[in-house]
Amino acid sequence: MKCSNRINGVGTSPVRKLIPYANGAISKGKKVYPLNIGQPDIKTPDLFFEAIRNYKTEVLKYVPSNGMPELINAIKDYYSGYGMEYAFEEILITCGGSEALLLTLLALADVGDQVLVVEPYYANYNTIFKALEIDVVAVSTKAEDGFHLPAKEEIEKVIKNNPKIKAILLPNPGNPTGTVYTKEEVQLISDIAKENDIYIIADEVYREFVYEGSECVSFGTMEGIEENLIIIDSISKRYSACGARIGCIISKNKDVIAQIYKLCQSRLSVPELEQVGAAALYETPDEYFKEVNEEYTKRRDTLYAEMSTMEGVVCSRPEGAFYSMVKLPVDDAEKFVIWLLSEFDINGETVMMAPGEGFYATPGAGINEVRIAYVLNVEDIKKAMNIIREGLKQYPGRTV
Amino acid sequence: MKCSNRINGVGTSPVRKLIPYANGAISKGKKVYPLNIGQPDIKTPDLFFEAIRNYKTEVLKYVPSNGMPELINAIKDYYSGYGMEYAFEEILITCGGSEALLLTLLALADVGDQVLVVEPYYANYNTIFKALEIDVVAVSTKAEDGFHLPAKEEIEKVIKNNPKIKAILLPNPGNPTGTVYTKEEVQLISDIAKENDIYIIADEVYREFVYEGSECVSFGTMEGIEENLIIIDSISKRYSACGARIGCIISKNKDVIAQIYKLCQSRLSVPELEQVGAAALYETPDEYFKEVNEEYTKRRDTLYAEMSTMEGVVCSRPEGAFYSMVKLPVDDAEKFVIWLLSEFDINGETVMMAPGEGFYATPGAGINEVRIAYVLNVEDIKKAMNIIREGLKQYPGRTV
Repeated sequence: MKCSNRINGVGTSPVRKLIPYANGAISKGKKVYPLNIGQPDIKTPDLFFEAIRNYKTEVLKYVPSNGMPELINAIKDYYSGYGMEYAFEEILITCGGSEALLLTLLALADVGDQVLVVEPYYANYNTIFKALEIDVVAVSTKAEDGFHLPAKEEIEKVIKNNPKIKAILLPNPGNPTGTVYTKEEVQLISDIAKENDIYIIADEVYREFVYEGSECVSFGTMEGIEENLIIIDSISKRYSACGARIGCIISKNKDVIAQIYKLCQSRLSVPELEQVGAAALYETPDEYFKEVNEEYTKRRDTLYAEMSTMEGVVCSRPEGAFYSMVKLPVDDAEKFVIWLLSEFDINGETVMMAPGEGFYATPGAGINEVRIAYVLNVEDIKKAMNIIREGLKQYPGRTV
Repeated sequence: MKCSNRINGVGTSPVRKLIPYANGAISKGKKVYPLNIGQPDIKTPDLFFEAIRNYKTEVLKYVPSNGMPELINAIKDYYSGYGMEYAFEEILITCGGSEALLLTLLALADVGDQVLVVEPYYANYNTIFKALEIDVVAVSTKAEDGFHLPAKEEIEKVIKNNPKIKAILLPNPGNPTGTVYTKEEVQLISDIAKENDIYIIADEVYREFVYEGSECVSFGTMEGIEENLIIIDSISKRYSACGARIGCIISKNKDVIAQIYKLCQSRLSVPELEQVGAAALYETPDEYFKEVNEEYTKRRDTLYAEMSTMEGVVCSRPEGAFYSMVKLPVDDAEKFVIWLLSEFDINGETVMMAPGEGFYATPGAGINEVRIAYVLNVEDIKKAMNIIREGLKQYPGRTV
C-alpha cells in the first residue's frame, strides 16, 4: 500500500516548511517575528462578529451550494461599485480563495494541461498544480525590474512553445512580489489571452492594497475578455478575515460557472455563519480601507527604507499587497533563515521568513531570495529589519 | 476554449437535480415535502452558538492547517469514549466530510486507479471519482437482502478482476440504504482489505444513528487494520450541524496523514468560528442522542409501516442513518418524481425524493428506486407517505 503519485509530487509550502525551526526557537524562549506568512494583524471589523451574534437560526442547515443570497448580493454590489456589473448567477461562493482556485483549475485543465504563471508566483499554487497534475509554465520576471512583465513577444514565444496552456494564472497585486500591474500590462495579458484562446484566472484578493495612488486595474474592467475571464476573490485580506475562509469565483462564462457549480454541489455548501459575517463585512465604511492603507504604506516604507540600506540586498519597492521579494547576499536563503532561527538572535529575538526557491518553477531560481510579509507594525518591522541586517553581517554563508 | 474533460464527466447530483421541478411546484403555491436531502430538522444544540458568542478574538486568523487544538482534542476524547484511542497527530480537521473524502481520495488514488464501493452508494462520491478520474468498481447489494453484503468469495472475485483497486469506500451506517453492517461484515471487509493490501475508507458520519439496540461497529475497533484504515467523520448529522461544515480524517497510517497534511496546508485552514462551535458540540450530553434516536426511530417506523402496506413497493427496514432505498412499481423513478412535482398534489401538497439511478454504478440499476430521507417529523412523514401512496395509484407509468 502506498499513497498516490500525485500526492507524492506535492512539496511542502515554503511559507510553512520552516515552522519547526521557528517552534524550536520559541521553545528556547526566543521571540520570533513572523514575516513568513500573510497573516495581517489588523483588527477584523466588528461588523463580522455582530452579524453572527445577531443571526438567529435553530438548525445549522446546508445553505445553497452557490452561496447565501445575502453574500452573493453584497459581492455583486461591491463589484458594481468598481464599475463591474456581474449577475447573481455569475458569482459562486467558495471556502476561501484556495477552494476557488482548486475548483477553477479542476474545471479548466486536464491532467497534462499547462497553466502559465509569472514567476516568482504564489507557492500554494504549486500544491494544486501537483495534486491535479497540471504542468506549470513560467515567464520569468526579476527583482531588478520590480517584477513587471517582459515584452509581449517573450510571453507569446512561451505560449507558442507550450500548446497545452489552458489558462494564465495571475495575482494582481502580486504575491509574493507586491507588484501592481499597469493598465498596459493588464491590457497585454488580455490581448494575449484573447488572441490565443486561453483563460485568464485573475487572483485579485489584494485589490485594495495598492499604495500612493497607484491603481489596481481589474481584469473585470477589460472589454472583450468576458468569456476568457475567471476572477478569484476573497475577504481574507480585504477585511483581515483570513480565518473566515470565504472566497468566491466570478465569471461571465456560463459554461465555466455551470461546470464549477457541479463541484460546489458535491461539497454541499460553504459554512453558514461565516457567510453571514462576510456579507456584513461588505458594509465596512471606506475609512477602514483608508486607515489600513495608510498603515501598510508606513510599513512598506519602513521595510523598503531599511532594506535599501543593507549592503548587497536587492529589493524593489512593493506597489501593492503586503509582500516583498528580496534578494539577499547569501549562498542559500533557506539556510540563512534556518540559521537565523537556530543560531542567531538579538536580545532573544529573531526573524522568520519564507525562502524564495519555492516561489519559482525554474530550478535554482530564487535560491538567494526571501519573501517578506510586512504584516507587523512599524516598530516590529524595524526590530525585525535590524535582526536581518545584523544577521547578514554575521551569517557564515554570506556571498558579497 | 472549453472546460476540462474531467469536469465534463461529472454528473448532476440525484439529490439535487430535480430541485428546479420542486421550485416550480413551490412557485405554483404548492407545499413540497423534502425527502430528497439528508438535512435533519433537529435543533442544533445551543452549545454551538453559545461557544461562538463567548469566543473573543480581535483578528480572524488562519488557524493551524490540521485544525484547532480544542477541536482535535474534543474528537480524540469522543473516540476514546468508544474505546478507540487516537493520538492528536492522527486527526486532521476538514471542511465537512466532503472535503475529508476529497483529500483522502487525492492522497490514495491516481488517475485510473479504482475504488471499490457497495452499490447503491452515496451519489456525491461520484463527483469526486469523476473529478479525480478514479474508476469506481461496485459490488451489488439488493433491497430484498436489506442491502447487506454478499459472500466473501463474491467480493474477492471482484477484487481479483480489478487489480487497480486501491481502497474500499464504505459508509456505515449506510447512505442511501440505512443498512448497519454486522460485526461479521465489518470483520469481513477488514480481512479482505488486509489480505489484499488495500485501504479502507470508512465513512462513519452516521455512527450514532442506529435503532433498536443494533450497534454500529466502527472499523476503528478492528485489530490489525491500523495501517489500512482511514475514518471519515463529521459533526453534520451527529449534532444536526450540516451548515457548519466541520469534518475530519482519522488514521494511524503516518504516511497517509503526512501526505494529506500537505493538502491541508495548501488550503491554509478550516473556518475558525465553526471549529470553536464544533468543539463545544462534543460536550453535548448523552440525553440529546437518546432523544434524537427515539425521534428517528418513530420516523423510521412510520415510514416503514406506511411503505410496507403499499402494493408493489419493496422496502427493507432501515437499521440506521435516516435513509431508505425503496423500490417502486414504476417505469422510471425519476419520471415519477417529476410527475409528482409537476402534475400531482393532495390539497396543494406534494413530495420530493431522490431518484435511485444516480446511486448505482451498474447501468440501468436502481431505475425504479428512490432514496427517501426521513428527516421530517412523524406527522409530515405520514402526509408525505399518503401522497406517495395516492400518487402511485394514479401515476400513468405504474408497472404492476
